[in-house]
Amino acid sequence: MKAHVWVMLKSTVLDPQGQTIQRALSSLGYSTVQDVRQGKFFVLALGGLSREEAQTQVARIAKDVLTNPVIEEFRFEILE
Amino acid sequence: MKAHVWVMLKSTVLDPQGQTIQRALSSLGYSTVQDVRQGKFFVLALGGLSREEAQTQVARIAKDVLTNPVIEEFRFEILE
Repeated sequence: MKAHVWVMLKSTVLDPQGQTIQRALSSLGYSTVQDVRQGKFFVLALGGLSREEAQTQVARIAKDVLTNPVIEEFRFEILE
Repeated sequence: MKAHVWVMLKSTVLDPQGQTIQRALSSLGYSTVQDVRQGKFFVLALGGLSREEAQTQVARIAKDVLTNPVIEEFRFEILE
């Protein structure tokens, strides 16, 4: 079983890395790109769990380990 | 219009960051997580493009700017 986890800065938090990419793209001629936000993406391989257990466990891992709750938010999906 | 871009290390490339997270999770009691791969996720806001133009432009941006083709691969989707 696999899980995908997305961790993004909250939309109220400034993303300087994304802004830098946006400016770089603009200077390369891609001026149609108005905004860039960068986040992290994790692929977890899980063994020996039911779908419900995986759901609970990945939610806890994303919340407690992968995300800084002060500035970030997460979403996840369970596959297979 | 928005685009989502995922950039991951090629599956043949070692992911030490993912391995570190996997070991950290294991030491925290999450031993059901057998493997972790970490990648980057970008949300691009695009203006004044048709869906076809966006498709072409985001493919080029992902290939030329966001991805290091030696060790990384990408996929993307266009939204709205």
